Amino acid sequence: MKNLKLIKSKISKVKLGKNCKIIEPVNIYGCTIGSHVFIGPFVEIQKNTKIGDNTRIQSHTFVCEKVNMGSNCFISHGVMFINDLFKKGKVNRNSNSFKKTTIGNNVIIGSNATILPVKINNNIVVGAGAVVTKNLLKKGIYTGNPAKFLKKI
Amino acid sequence: MKNLKLIKSKISKVKLGKNCKIIEPVNIYGCTIGSHVFIGPFVEIQKNTKIGDNTRIQSHTFVCEKVNMGSNCFISHGVMFINDLFKKGKVNRNSNSFKKTTIGNNVIIGSNATILPVKINNNIVVGAGAVVTKNLLKKGIYTGNPAKFLKKI
Amino acid sequence: MKNLKLIKSKISKVKLGKNCKIIEPVNIYGCTIGSHVFIGPFVEIQKNTKIGDNTRIQSHTFVCEKVNMGSNCFISHGVMFINDLFKKGKVNRNSNSFKKTTIGNNVIIGSNATILPVKINNNIVVGAGAVVTKNLLKKGIYTGNPAKFLKKI
Repeated sequence: MKNLKLIKSKISKVKLGKNCKIIEPVNIYGCTIGSHVFIGPFVEIQKNTKIGDNTRIQSHTFVCEKVNMGSNCFISHGVMFINDLFKKGKVNRNSNSFKKTTIGNNVIIGSNATILPVKINNNIVVGAGAVVTKNLLKKGIYTGNPAKFLKKI
Repeated sequence: MKNLKLIKSKISKVKLGKNCKIIEPVNIYGCTIGSHVFIGPFVEIQKNTKIGDNTRIQSHTFVCEKVNMGSNCFISHGVMFINDLFKKGKVNRNSNSFKKTTIGNNVIIGSNATILPVKINNNIVVGAGAVVTKNLLKKGIYTGNPAKFLKKI
Repeated sequence: MKNLKLIKSKISKVKLGKNCKIIEPVNIYGCTIGSHVFIGPFVEIQKNTKIGDNTRIQSHTFVCEKVNMGSNCFISHGVMFINDLFKKGKVNRNSNSFKKTTIGNNVIIGSNATILPVKINNNIVVGAGAVVTKNLLKKGIYTGNPAKFLKKI
């Protein structure tokens, strides 16, 4: 156990709006969070992310660097965002080249969904357990692995 | 950070049977849990749920409101239950109309499975990573996204 | 709440190499971990597991008994390992007969992936959200539920 660096999860260097509610333990650092945001327990939000007003991030969700999320979104439980496609079988160690994810307003993402670095437009629903590998631009509900258009809202 | 409401995960207002074992941190509130129940770390169980005797809820699992689970079940790791289908692209804010999930006795649910609001009968196995979108009534093993009957037990 | 056994997650009986970094809370016990290993928050690692040098285990991941993982691996967020196939619809209560998982060196596993008890060779990438049900022996990228060979690296 020589030189073990043991760090506690915390809320650190976060720019936070008004009237937010957070259930600890969480590990949230270096991000910008709007007003009236709810964050459930066992959530990690990395630096260089932005979360809009009135958005809710439910338990067990992980928001990686370079996710930019709009207002009035509902991110369910166990949702994982991704910024590295492991191209060429390598992990990208350079955060400058992490891939961006852009989530519009009024987006709903179901539990256990996995979101690769894509653009998701306003008013879109991603079904529970979906794996989103491409941009979702047309309003509607998307489900499956990989996620496909299921129906209009 | 004006008016930040910071709340610690806890065990609160739980009706709990005899000889249970719980690994903290967990966030468990307003539910009824039988005897000889095990609950692993990083679990959230919401109010208005019922968990039968001898059932085991493994780490990272989320049990939402209106889940009624029988005895001798084994809920593996990272399982997410759901009570809102986001019909019409909206989040349901009225817990009175959340959808029910009923899990029988001797049900086994594999890790990372996602369970939409359905009925699962006694003696059924849901495979790891499955997304259950329909009632599972016939005894057997179900796998895939969406989950389909794989084979008899 | 008679006889409630309430236990805190902790790092216990771990054989740990040099210069590791761990973000608490975690529940890690009875395992052997190499040097320069990173372990993110909300991770559980059970006993009788081995994790090689320079491997990174990201947040929300669960490593079960009998997983043997090589060096320089990257296990993303929310990855669940499995050692019981629930054959005959029963949970295996005898840890001596838990199934083994062997992960080589330089293996990358994407977020929310589910890994049944298999062998994964060196230099393999498992895509996000994949459910790995068979041995992965040939170098390349595997995706889907169940996971299939997608392309060469």
